[in-house]
Amino acid sequence: MIHNKLAVCVIGAGRAGMIHAVNFAKHVPDALLAAVVDTQEEAARAAAEKLDIAHYYSSCAHALMDDRIDAYVVVSPTKYHMETVKAIAEAGKHILCEKPMAMTEEECEEMIRVCRQHKVKLQLGFMRRFDESFRQAKNMVDYGEIGEVVMVRSNTRGPSIPRPWMYDIRKSNGPLAEVNSHDIDTMRWFTGSEFQTLYAVGGNYRCPDAREQFPEFYDNVVMAASFANGMQGMLDGAQGVGYAYDAKVEILGTKGAISLGSVKGNDVVLCSSASQRGSYPLVESWRTLFKDAYLKEDRAFIDCILQDKEPAVTGIDGKMAVKVVNAGNISIMEKRMVTL
Amino acid sequence: MIHNKLAVCVIGAGRAGMIHAVNFAKHVPDALLAAVVDTQEEAARAAAEKLDIAHYYSSCAHALMDDRIDAYVVVSPTKYHMETVKAIAEAGKHILCEKPMAMTEEECEEMIRVCRQHKVKLQLGFMRRFDESFRQAKNMVDYGEIGEVVMVRSNTRGPSIPRPWMYDIRKSNGPLAEVNSHDIDTMRWFTGSEFQTLYAVGGNYRCPDAREQFPEFYDNVVMAASFANGMQGMLDGAQGVGYAYDAKVEILGTKGAISLGSVKGNDVVLCSSASQRGSYPLVESWRTLFKDAYLKEDRAFIDCILQDKEPAVTGIDGKMAVKVVNAGNISIMEKRMVTL
Amino acid sequence: MIHNKLAVCVIGAGRAGMIHAVNFAKHVPDALLAAVVDTQEEAARAAAEKLDIAHYYSSCAHALMDDRIDAYVVVSPTKYHMETVKAIAEAGKHILCEKPMAMTEEECEEMIRVCRQHKVKLQLGFMRRFDESFRQAKNMVDYGEIGEVVMVRSNTRGPSIPRPWMYDIRKSNGPLAEVNSHDIDTMRWFTGSEFQTLYAVGGNYRCPDAREQFPEFYDNVVMAASFANGMQGMLDGAQGVGYAYDAKVEILGTKGAISLGSVKGNDVVLCSSASQRGSYPLVESWRTLFKDAYLKEDRAFIDCILQDKEPAVTGIDGKMAVKVVNAGNISIMEKRMVTL
Amino acid sequence: MIHNKLAVCVIGAGRAGMIHAVNFAKHVPDALLAAVVDTQEEAARAAAEKLDIAHYYSSCAHALMDDRIDAYVVVSPTKYHMETVKAIAEAGKHILCEKPMAMTEEECEEMIRVCRQHKVKLQLGFMRRFDESFRQAKNMVDYGEIGEVVMVRSNTRGPSIPRPWMYDIRKSNGPLAEVNSHDIDTMRWFTGSEFQTLYAVGGNYRCPDAREQFPEFYDNVVMAASFANGMQGMLDGAQGVGYAYDAKVEILGTKGAISLGSVKGNDVVLCSSASQRGSYPLVESWRTLFKDAYLKEDRAFIDCILQDKEPAVTGIDGKMAVKVVNAGNISIMEKRMVTL
Repeated sequence: MIHNKLAVCVIGAGRAGMIHAVNFAKHVPDALLAAVVDTQEEAARAAAEKLDIAHYYSSCAHALMDDRIDAYVVVSPTKYHMETVKAIAEAGKHILCEKPMAMTEEECEEMIRVCRQHKVKLQLGFMRRFDESFRQAKNMVDYGEIGEVVMVRSNTRGPSIPRPWMYDIRKSNGPLAEVNSHDIDTMRWFTGSEFQTLYAVGGNYRCPDAREQFPEFYDNVVMAASFANGMQGMLDGAQGVGYAYDAKVEILGTKGAISLGSVKGNDVVLCSSASQRGSYPLVESWRTLFKDAYLKEDRAFIDCILQDKEPAVTGIDGKMAVKVVNAGNISIMEKRMVTL
Repeated sequence: MIHNKLAVCVIGAGRAGMIHAVNFAKHVPDALLAAVVDTQEEAARAAAEKLDIAHYYSSCAHALMDDRIDAYVVVSPTKYHMETVKAIAEAGKHILCEKPMAMTEEECEEMIRVCRQHKVKLQLGFMRRFDESFRQAKNMVDYGEIGEVVMVRSNTRGPSIPRPWMYDIRKSNGPLAEVNSHDIDTMRWFTGSEFQTLYAVGGNYRCPDAREQFPEFYDNVVMAASFANGMQGMLDGAQGVGYAYDAKVEILGTKGAISLGSVKGNDVVLCSSASQRGSYPLVESWRTLFKDAYLKEDRAFIDCILQDKEPAVTGIDGKMAVKVVNAGNISIMEKRMVTL
Repeated sequence: MIHNKLAVCVIGAGRAGMIHAVNFAKHVPDALLAAVVDTQEEAARAAAEKLDIAHYYSSCAHALMDDRIDAYVVVSPTKYHMETVKAIAEAGKHILCEKPMAMTEEECEEMIRVCRQHKVKLQLGFMRRFDESFRQAKNMVDYGEIGEVVMVRSNTRGPSIPRPWMYDIRKSNGPLAEVNSHDIDTMRWFTGSEFQTLYAVGGNYRCPDAREQFPEFYDNVVMAASFANGMQGMLDGAQGVGYAYDAKVEILGTKGAISLGSVKGNDVVLCSSASQRGSYPLVESWRTLFKDAYLKEDRAFIDCILQDKEPAVTGIDGKMAVKVVNAGNISIMEKRMVTL
Repeated sequence: MIHNKLAVCVIGAGRAGMIHAVNFAKHVPDALLAAVVDTQEEAARAAAEKLDIAHYYSSCAHALMDDRIDAYVVVSPTKYHMETVKAIAEAGKHILCEKPMAMTEEECEEMIRVCRQHKVKLQLGFMRRFDESFRQAKNMVDYGEIGEVVMVRSNTRGPSIPRPWMYDIRKSNGPLAEVNSHDIDTMRWFTGSEFQTLYAVGGNYRCPDAREQFPEFYDNVVMAASFANGMQGMLDGAQGVGYAYDAKVEILGTKGAISLGSVKGNDVVLCSSASQRGSYPLVESWRTLFKDAYLKEDRAFIDCILQDKEPAVTGIDGKMAVKVVNAGNISIMEKRMVTL
């Protein structure tokens, strides 16, 4: 604790890392930002300067030796999550881990085990659960406004082209992991159940440079699924769509339906006699769309530490998403239905 | 009556006239189209052929001698309305008269008087009252869903450029008559009251060829008004906007608000990565937007004749709109508030 | 031909049958309605009276003996389609056949064969292809406005509860046939390709009375699919959703996306201080939503006969949809991915 | 300057004051919040505590003696604006003054004169000019996307009931000042011109307790106006509408139209079979709708001081809005058109 505030260190100074860092630096009342870590020392230094903080590290090992720190936010590449989380837990510090939790279900289980053993909090970064519109929808479902849930359909389509490190699906887990982890969690959250069977189709439509060397790579995916409690699910995901950040959910119930999200950006509509069409701007990025959700997530993390309560999104939630991602990738690669 | 159906004759084979003609020819069960009239004989002949009917006339006088006909729809230019309606009434036949009813309040009163004297029906062509969405809004108001009405705001903006015969406002009554008669009726309908004071501003923004010779001509108008029962009104009108047929209404009450209409055409939304904007088609014309309303209006006209009941929109409604148009034009030309 | 017009007979006087009947009776210029058929004689008689026509029959056999008739619209239950269509073709008359085309792929092939042999037109009733917004979307796709198509997602959810004759999926082919035939055709149309693999999940959520006796019955279905040309597809279908007729399509391309359809009915928005929510009416029925599409379909049918050209929607289109329906039902029942 | 940052003091710890205070305390990089002032000492103390700052004052006089402070934000009641702004200017400090600028045009002129004399910045609080959607619309207009501007229509309707201190219009200037100052500025901004004539209608529909003692009070107003450059304007304002914070603008041009704003809140749409209507939440408050605009306004204020440039919104802008408010109130009270 520093000045009676929980001292947080963010590991990974990329775009998502900086969102968390700014939140803890300025907008979470009971927390402060104590340090940032990036394995590229220059990136770490630049981030610290931008955030107006004194401490930065180029390795987790060094950050873990900083006794002032109470909690770590893990925003490093997924393949390092397990070792990083284990080291933090063994140091007795709390963890907010970005999605995807890890590369395999086994890694997730190991992370959960070690955190339990060392009695530290482990919260997963499914920030959509903190978004105001998702919460309102969840309340509507819980209050029975659409009867019993029948089907959940969720899609996330990102505007930017996948980076080459994603091309090897066996190492990156692909768009299902990087983009659709959120949809998978949303489907679990609204059905209140676990995936039972699924079938996914993937294809590479926008990355010709990956085709020869990485024939398994896909930048677009559709999936149909059944859940253990008999409900149904659909998911689609895309990278490089260009036009917008397009995240939408529909929840169909026995007595109604809820639809969440839209590609419409701020409300400027232009009607033109040149085109005889009306037009409006589109949502540019997850960073603008879910800005408040990230903040609420970070505040919830601090609260669960201070009040010693279970995180709202646990390691189990992280593990189940990884399990579905892997099953989805198997379905795509082996062109078959998978039972979980 | 022909074959037990009310025989209708449409006077005026322009766009609005043809809508009525097609309706009576095909879609009004208890009516049939017996003849069309157009002072341009060729237009009358072509219309009859298109409508697949045998009779057409190039003058009202001839049409009035056709004994088979029970009712006339007057869609000729406004300046001929009074003489035409009077002649029809004196022949003992019923009348559906398009808006605007006439050029002056006095003409309207004379038309009402003669129709009453000869006990014929006189229905005015404010077809928006028959539009499904307007009716739903009226029901909401009547059932108190927005409390007491406070203010009605109505606008109509047409895509097409005014034709030169409108340039002389003193002869044509201008856009307030040709375009905004509907808004005036809508405001009267939803307030349930009469205009008391008004102030209107007009200007010519799109018709440079009219500026020198017709300095009083306006193609855009705004108006603020008070009603006898203390409610408020706003109106705006335009010709030649190009982008769409833009007719919208807002009704503000003490406990809520209703909004009616939109420029959005059929639901095809295009999101493009080229422009990063979403776009949708716009409503093209009053003919598509109010197609069903015209049909319901025509059916209501036949019903009021067959069941000998008062038309839903009377000569009084026509007269009050003309009165407001004239007051509006005086306000624009003399740049002053007018008390009605 | 009667009076130089193609004489049409509608077989089946239910809701969809009456839409076609009214169209041919009143709204298709080169056609007239010569007769209606319904195996319930009383229904046939009532329909003829309502349509103001003199001839009705209680069997196809009798209708086929009416020499005046040039073309038949088959709107009878699906299981009778093959025998009816074959009899019409053998009589040398043209056929507009409602969807689903038949119960099995083999039946479809037989129907196509016989129609070819007798050189009669066979048009399938996928009227969405004639809907103005679908056509606009197709044009956008064809003109490359969204680049290459990547994925098509289509859903149809009907408000009304399935009728008991649908409960036995092996006899009725279920909601995939009755509701989603349209989505299947839409996906084929926009991908320009055929289904290759699919996986579907079905469940019965709203029809408790069917559960015991018809455990295979489903009233909700989700499906993921791949196409022969590598594109992807998603579909969901429902019966008895209650809230609206909810038919929407998204077409995702490499350079943009198109979204088609909405549950929003006519534009009356109510904002209320009681609920602090805005609300709008929902689309009630396919009959209102696709009213114009049915009319254009019927006109296209007459045109293809008069101009002796290929129908816009052929027996092949009908057969392929049946094939997908059957594959989908197998996928649901055997809980496995199916390769077509 | 404190720690190389501009030290700002906020005068008035109400809702709008706290928005500015939080902005300067946390979100404006080159500024810090040095103190807050409220004449109710307890309110000042509570605000300082909440903002985590050490200094608060219960009078402007004391705040002006705090040498550390570089700039003051005036959010006190309008009637104190002139004396406060003059005192600050005479102390040589910069001023961000909330709208309405003052009670009369003469007061505004005096404020402008004194600020010029003492060479201090005077920025007016029309924060909508900093809102992202307003800026986009302004850019569209400036780039000619709708041709030449013809008409600007702006409305602001607030959900909450007027407080009794507003009842005496001669002292409070009423809703035109408190609510519609923003619309007046928006109309000036988009027309690039000044009001020339106007006619306004006011009425009291929601405050029965004010009727007897304050017959001139209005809680709803409509206005039509002409501008010096020949453009047209419409405005409507309301207090106590209950359903939402409803601020919308339409800009009609010779080649198109722009519409700005909507009452739709975050994107959760509920379709229910109980009501067969879809519904969405409504915007609750100007505080949520214009949260970012306030922040950008505050940043712009600091920038104009540091870079010694003219504020984006000047005292002239403030004065012209006051002039229109007063003309509007005269129009309402004397029931006549007013020429400015």
